[in-house]
Amino acid sequence: MFKAVIDAETLRDAIDAVSSLVDEVRFAISENGIELKAVDPANVAMVSFRIDPEAFEYFEAAQGDIGVDLVRLSDVLSMADRGENVTLELDEENHKLKIGLNALSYTLSLIDPSAIRKEPRVPDLDLPAHVILPGPQLRKAIRAAEKVSDHVILGVSDDPEDMFYMEASGDIDSLILKIPSRELLGMKPGIARSLFSLDYLSDMSKAIGKAQEVKLEMGVDYPLRVYFSLSQGVDINYLLAPRIEQE
Amino acid sequence: MFKAVIDAETLRDAIDAVSSLVDEVRFAISENGIELKAVDPANVAMVSFRIDPEAFEYFEAAQGDIGVDLVRLSDVLSMADRGENVTLELDEENHKLKIGLNALSYTLSLIDPSAIRKEPRVPDLDLPAHVILPGPQLRKAIRAAEKVSDHVILGVSDDPEDMFYMEASGDIDSLILKIPSRELLGMKPGIARSLFSLDYLSDMSKAIGKAQEVKLEMGVDYPLRVYFSLSQGVDINYLLAPRIEQE
Amino acid sequence: MFKAVIDAETLRDAIDAVSSLVDEVRFAISENGIELKAVDPANVAMVSFRIDPEAFEYFEAAQGDIGVDLVRLSDVLSMADRGENVTLELDEENHKLKIGLNALSYTLSLIDPSAIRKEPRVPDLDLPAHVILPGPQLRKAIRAAEKVSDHVILGVSDDPEDMFYMEASGDIDSLILKIPSRELLGMKPGIARSLFSLDYLSDMSKAIGKAQEVKLEMGVDYPLRVYFSLSQGVDINYLLAPRIEQE
Repeated sequence: MFKAVIDAETLRDAIDAVSSLVDEVRFAISENGIELKAVDPANVAMVSFRIDPEAFEYFEAAQGDIGVDLVRLSDVLSMADRGENVTLELDEENHKLKIGLNALSYTLSLIDPSAIRKEPRVPDLDLPAHVILPGPQLRKAIRAAEKVSDHVILGVSDDPEDMFYMEASGDIDSLILKIPSRELLGMKPGIARSLFSLDYLSDMSKAIGKAQEVKLEMGVDYPLRVYFSLSQGVDINYLLAPRIEQE
Repeated sequence: MFKAVIDAETLRDAIDAVSSLVDEVRFAISENGIELKAVDPANVAMVSFRIDPEAFEYFEAAQGDIGVDLVRLSDVLSMADRGENVTLELDEENHKLKIGLNALSYTLSLIDPSAIRKEPRVPDLDLPAHVILPGPQLRKAIRAAEKVSDHVILGVSDDPEDMFYMEASGDIDSLILKIPSRELLGMKPGIARSLFSLDYLSDMSKAIGKAQEVKLEMGVDYPLRVYFSLSQGVDINYLLAPRIEQE
Repeated sequence: MFKAVIDAETLRDAIDAVSSLVDEVRFAISENGIELKAVDPANVAMVSFRIDPEAFEYFEAAQGDIGVDLVRLSDVLSMADRGENVTLELDEENHKLKIGLNALSYTLSLIDPSAIRKEPRVPDLDLPAHVILPGPQLRKAIRAAEKVSDHVILGVSDDPEDMFYMEASGDIDSLILKIPSRELLGMKPGIARSLFSLDYLSDMSKAIGKAQEVKLEMGVDYPLRVYFSLSQGVDINYLLAPRIEQE
């Protein structure tokens, strides 16, 4: 049993944060809300999200898994007007999700959850440093780096002062971003420096740009963990594997 | 003799309502305004429009037919700024239409009216039911149906209450729209249900979306008639043949 | 030595006015500001610009030439938010231009100035007539002419009254623009009539459309000279060779 009402744009933003990395997912539905963990086809990036019951206008659910094609779900949600609510209702017998938008009722065929790639094991990482900055600022930096290269170094340094930095070097031009701790929204100082693929960061950056604040946890040649809330009770979490830095 | 002044956007909206179905048309000009009847190349959809003299800032005309390439006319009208008037003046001798937009004077070559496909005979149909709804609402429903299928059922039902409905079924997903009579702007109850090509409805929906209210006349496996005004004195009328519903 | 701070949008608009005609240019930097003269690859159009020191928030420069890829420079400037300043600083030793946008620091590799096409000799022309009109009006006329033809006649006439005119004739349709002197922002009456390629005028028109007023100097079968300021101290100048008018 699952029936829920939520602002269509809120749900769509959360869906799009995932669909930039993976198309078909298994939602774990329970009285604690909707959760999802998925890994991209190349095993480079992991995404998890959680929508708490409080983020819904109405929420009633028994425990269960449903398999969803996120591209089609996002497409349906895009029909909503700004501020419009969407009603989700599970038709268990027929393996359908009924999506109601005012007078419109859309029937989305579900995917057999067992046909979807297994939920990844989230590695237990102790990342030594973190910074917190506005989502739009990080998005802008990622887009700037795309102009120069296809990979980027993210790091935390204490030289000459505690700061977050980003470096992108192309064949011709290069780019450096330096934000000292006093201009960050928060920081756990430390030493971190890892190289990441801009392809993945770009895919993530659209959702990141919608967040008021984003927390980046980093280490030396370690994965990057990105935390942010899209709205009250809608939490997204990315984990991105580092690339090996070549001299 | 023909000379007229009209708001450029009003004229363009009317032209675009036709040009989505047919490119070259014959305008019948008379002291009663401008009229047009045309049928699409596949004989599936018919469009007629009428611009009354009252819709013009200035209107003076003797009876006559002119052949016009609507794509070029719409292209010229697109040069106007919002709220700008356009002056139309027939140069009969040279088979040209002079189109004035402030300091700009565009000379549009006319097409020999006899080279244009004959005006269709508008069938005399007695359609048993109709509904009236806001243009944007119908447009939105058509766009939603496009996500699912390439054809759609439009109907009027009295079960469980008087209502307008739309159904689209794709290979995977399906969509239903139901608007009870109390949420319609007007209705003549009855039983209607016909299948239509979404290609044509999509072409029509851009103009439909600009109308405050649209009247749909329907029957069982009968053509759909669509009536709407784009502004005072600018009336559009579509007639769309049904497709045969396959079991 | 060169260090300067300027509104990023101002600089970008000036760069784009040039980059529509030529990609790689040599900036002449001195205490008098930044100057540039360049000719398009086909030798049909010439562009020069000058940014006075007063247009900068900060300006300090020794005499020198730098070679710049305008497409990359414009791309970097496009990262700026509205109203954001950009800092330019020359790293002479490494042949780099450091471009600072808040926390971002972009390093642009310069081109060897000697590898860039020689500065054109600006011909000394005595053009008998000129008109001054709003940039957006001229841009709109150029875009209208593009709908009809790939070349256009620009002229000044005294018949039946002093006016600026533009004529475009296509295979089917034609277009005339006539602006009498009383509707112009300024005029030096005379007789002028020359044919120009719309390709070049279109490339110029994007920058022209941003200018409050544009001065066009013309003669009979003579080049067209276009003068305008994008903002205080930012002056652009185009010179466009005429085409031979065929009877």
